[in-house]
Amino acid sequence: MLGEAAAPLGITLIFLDPTPRAPGHPVATEQIVADFDDTDAIGRLAEQSDVLSYEIELVDDESLATVRDRHDVPVHPAPETLSMIQDKLVQKRTLRDHGVPVPDFRAVGSLPELREALDELGCPAMLKARRGGYDGRGNRLVRSREEAPRALKSMPGDCMLEELVDFEREVSVMAARGANQRRTYPATETVHEEEILRRTLTPARSSDRVRARARERAVEVLGLLEGRGVYGIEMFEAGGEILINEIAPRPHNSGHWTIEGAKTSQFEQHLRAVTGQPLGSTDLIQPTVSVNILGTGSESRPARLRNVRSVLTNPNIHFHWYGKREVRPLRKMGHLTLTGADPGALIAQADSAREELTFSP
Amino acid sequence: MLGEAAAPLGITLIFLDPTPRAPGHPVATEQIVADFDDTDAIGRLAEQSDVLSYEIELVDDESLATVRDRHDVPVHPAPETLSMIQDKLVQKRTLRDHGVPVPDFRAVGSLPELREALDELGCPAMLKARRGGYDGRGNRLVRSREEAPRALKSMPGDCMLEELVDFEREVSVMAARGANQRRTYPATETVHEEEILRRTLTPARSSDRVRARARERAVEVLGLLEGRGVYGIEMFEAGGEILINEIAPRPHNSGHWTIEGAKTSQFEQHLRAVTGQPLGSTDLIQPTVSVNILGTGSESRPARLRNVRSVLTNPNIHFHWYGKREVRPLRKMGHLTLTGADPGALIAQADSAREELTFSP
Repeated sequence: MLGEAAAPLGITLIFLDPTPRAPGHPVATEQIVADFDDTDAIGRLAEQSDVLSYEIELVDDESLATVRDRHDVPVHPAPETLSMIQDKLVQKRTLRDHGVPVPDFRAVGSLPELREALDELGCPAMLKARRGGYDGRGNRLVRSREEAPRALKSMPGDCMLEELVDFEREVSVMAARGANQRRTYPATETVHEEEILRRTLTPARSSDRVRARARERAVEVLGLLEGRGVYGIEMFEAGGEILINEIAPRPHNSGHWTIEGAKTSQFEQHLRAVTGQPLGSTDLIQPTVSVNILGTGSESRPARLRNVRSVLTNPNIHFHWYGKREVRPLRKMGHLTLTGADPGALIAQADSAREELTFSP
Repeated sequence: MLGEAAAPLGITLIFLDPTPRAPGHPVATEQIVADFDDTDAIGRLAEQSDVLSYEIELVDDESLATVRDRHDVPVHPAPETLSMIQDKLVQKRTLRDHGVPVPDFRAVGSLPELREALDELGCPAMLKARRGGYDGRGNRLVRSREEAPRALKSMPGDCMLEELVDFEREVSVMAARGANQRRTYPATETVHEEEILRRTLTPARSSDRVRARARERAVEVLGLLEGRGVYGIEMFEAGGEILINEIAPRPHNSGHWTIEGAKTSQFEQHLRAVTGQPLGSTDLIQPTVSVNILGTGSESRPARLRNVRSVLTNPNIHFHWYGKREVRPLRKMGHLTLTGADPGALIAQADSAREELTFSP
């Protein structure tokens, strides 16, 4: 989607990805096939580039910092911001230490620490690996004190425990930081199942006050981040207040709706930001729903999506296929965006279209 | 722009163009570098393709027909439709013979024929080369009987003479023909200077009746064309009636506004049509203006556009750069699209932005 946005802006996009002919290949000028921590390959990318950015937080922060210093090329967002975000405990501490409301949490390095944290935060609570989590991987709900040993053993490394927030809804705000501008998009309501994003609705069905508060909080968060770009900021709305859940240092799944629903898509916005161009308008065009097309079944197989034709007959549906060749259970394969005046109708149509789309076994 | 639209639909786009690394290169999966009449190269393209289409009417119609028959691959629109459109005299005759209103015209094969046609159609009148014209090339206004010999000599081959229509405005309708569907977009008002498109406004500022009539005429024209795809149909509004000026068998410059202004862009629509998918909605989202960024100066030189930053600060402006490396006088280098509630304001902003954008000498 960054590639689709780059061409009209006259931006030449070269990307690095370990998978040959990765999904970005058709819409980018060139691909360098290499691992995300291959400093030499990132260096070759830097030699051809005016600016480096990334759209996956599993990229190696130290490699990026090395290349930035060695090749004197700007990297946005800053590798230091990426490091801070990659460690969920450091991320939460940074937010809390600057007065940004977050769910209560404790560092957990041992079983006694986990038990103490469970006593303090209550059960159930969410045990999170500090590093490497994604789409719910690395998160585990601890329902009772008795589960503590097993839960801790399942974690890949150091952890944190977080209180389970009794939220009214989950909300996300895409926030852009340009050379000397900050802009936020309208607050989006998000629905997760098994900690994977399923659906968004913009604007969120919160009160005006809470929606405005969500955007204010996003601006506060931007102030703690170094480097330009678009950030996805996930939040909880609880008791009329906004708590920050997690920051993504890149265009985010919960902002895909902006392609059709906002004056400037998050992808164009990210490119404007990192290249130092003026930011575009974040105004909503009309209410917008997006639903993810997730992999089904129990094993990897060639991706063949059924009933696309039927879904394309709905005049409100915009179809986005990511070009991944293999479908895997719950893998994000694409999304649908629906725009229209009536959010309720859009949600009903979106859910029904998502039901209809299935993968061949 | 077809490439940008193909990726989200999951369509692999391979294109043939004689210029290595042509503007489509970054957004297409692959390019075959060959001439438009290279039947062998088009055959290689056919072997990799489910369907062939084209987006320039200077492609060779006979090569396309040969490849279609030899490789049993569908070609949309049909090469026969392309042949008919490529000869402006045959095109006009086809329309007239089927009762579609067109400006009056005469075939011109010699100076006596031209003189007779001028007597019948009046002066000034438009002398047009039957084949090969584009953006005003091949057209010449004949202001007096005395100019006839010089005018005829300047033509590259057989000609036709057309009455000069005293139009209220020029209008264009993008019309799509799918597997078993026909859809038209709202009528667009177009402004040409030196016979090159400068600006569009959608919806056209005609009466409701004339706007509806323009779409009806477009459907009549579709009925005369074989093969699926999007067609750009240029018209004159004169005396409350609609006359057909010219048909383009492809997405058209006067339909670029659909990227932001319509539910489905003409490029997505063309891809849906030629691949046999259901057509998308042609509904207008909001009033939309587009202006072309045309090459300035008097000679070819590397394309460096100035003041892009300033133009990008306007929240209503969408920037489209075509990636052509050389700027030439009046060459189409890109376009701007503006959307908003107030057409008058959009036109003023568009013209002012277009003034601001200049090319380095």
